[in-house]
Amino acid sequence: MLWTRAQPGQRTALVLLTHGGGQHKGAPAVAARAWRYLKELDAAIIAIDAPGHGDRERGGRDTLFIEQLTQARRDGTPVGDLIEGYNADVAAQALPEFSEVLTAVQALDEIGADVRIGFWGLSSGAAIGLPFVAGEPRVTAAVLGLTGSDQLREQARRIRVPVQFLLQWDDEFVDRAVGLGVYDALASTEKSLHANAGGHTAVPRFEVDAEARFFTRHPAVPA
Amino acid sequence: MLWTRAQPGQRTALVLLTHGGGQHKGAPAVAARAWRYLKELDAAIIAIDAPGHGDRERGGRDTLFIEQLTQARRDGTPVGDLIEGYNADVAAQALPEFSEVLTAVQALDEIGADVRIGFWGLSSGAAIGLPFVAGEPRVTAAVLGLTGSDQLREQARRIRVPVQFLLQWDDEFVDRAVGLGVYDALASTEKSLHANAGGHTAVPRFEVDAEARFFTRHPAVPA
Repeated sequence: MLWTRAQPGQRTALVLLTHGGGQHKGAPAVAARAWRYLKELDAAIIAIDAPGHGDRERGGRDTLFIEQLTQARRDGTPVGDLIEGYNADVAAQALPEFSEVLTAVQALDEIGADVRIGFWGLSSGAAIGLPFVAGEPRVTAAVLGLTGSDQLREQARRIRVPVQFLLQWDDEFVDRAVGLGVYDALASTEKSLHANAGGHTAVPRFEVDAEARFFTRHPAVPA
Repeated sequence: MLWTRAQPGQRTALVLLTHGGGQHKGAPAVAARAWRYLKELDAAIIAIDAPGHGDRERGGRDTLFIEQLTQARRDGTPVGDLIEGYNADVAAQALPEFSEVLTAVQALDEIGADVRIGFWGLSSGAAIGLPFVAGEPRVTAAVLGLTGSDQLREQARRIRVPVQFLLQWDDEFVDRAVGLGVYDALASTEKSLHANAGGHTAVPRFEVDAEARFFTRHPAVPA
């Protein structure tokens, strides 16, 4: 999905939104960002269904994960390793796709090749985002967070662009020390940690505002 | 010092600014906040010289601290305990004074008794601020941070109002775990940690903006 404002000339910036696990390109958390960013930034906004999500076909790997997750929740066993393994597989497939999407969008008349590119993704969206931002030199700023693992911490070490990193202080899925470790590992000169009280899904609405402010500094300009 | 905008009617909010160690009520960090808050909030702004600072007389305790600090820096010995002890003594003297200032300001025609009150103080300003906000029921929101100790963590446990808490990730004076422990101890339902890369004095300018946004939600209203 691509949102732009009806106005003449090229957009100076582009923000790529990546949804969380089990969600899709039009999910409320994504749409809220699209709406706010579009209002506050001179930017085009794009959102993509991750592999196995939204309008895309579910493959054997997706079906297996959903079955395993359902079973684990029924049994009351921990789901962290399951999610981490699945997220890594989704990310491996998504990375080349996301780069191709950027190339395609940059070919549009209203965008242009020298557009500055930001990335937003939390939770499973950051499990894609950390390796994506680490490896895609066209991305010059990112909002990431609500995730953590040894593997993602190593990806964070390769990131040098400005990052706003979100954690929920009482996250039932992300160990606090592991999450702080990912923030710590970021090699960015400008990196801001925003941690809020509450569980995984309780990110306060004012963080959407704070994200728009971040993207006003990097890479976009105010509308 | 009291700043208000030249406009009719009473201010709906008041923000009390407390400077850092060795600084004063007109220091650049204080003045930057006064200017920005005044521009963005329907609030009156006050700043006070802490005991032994700015235009106020230095007593024996202040002179002793300055001598000890100078000597410790010359010897290259740790200064954390010295600063913590001095800050605690300054806070003990400041707390009743700050409450008296609030009472005096609330008596002004342009302010009014039902004004909502916010507090801003970092570093030594938060060493006063943590016990002040914990014990002064008129304060309904606070920006605090850049400090930490066992004693201040216990004060944090008594705070229930919304707090934005700043830490510098590479702070040379505040141990990271101790600082995170103060944030963790806050009993507030709404509490946001903003941690940024860099040392004690490298708080990014965009945090002044983020503070104004916080005070727009609590307790003030936009200008």
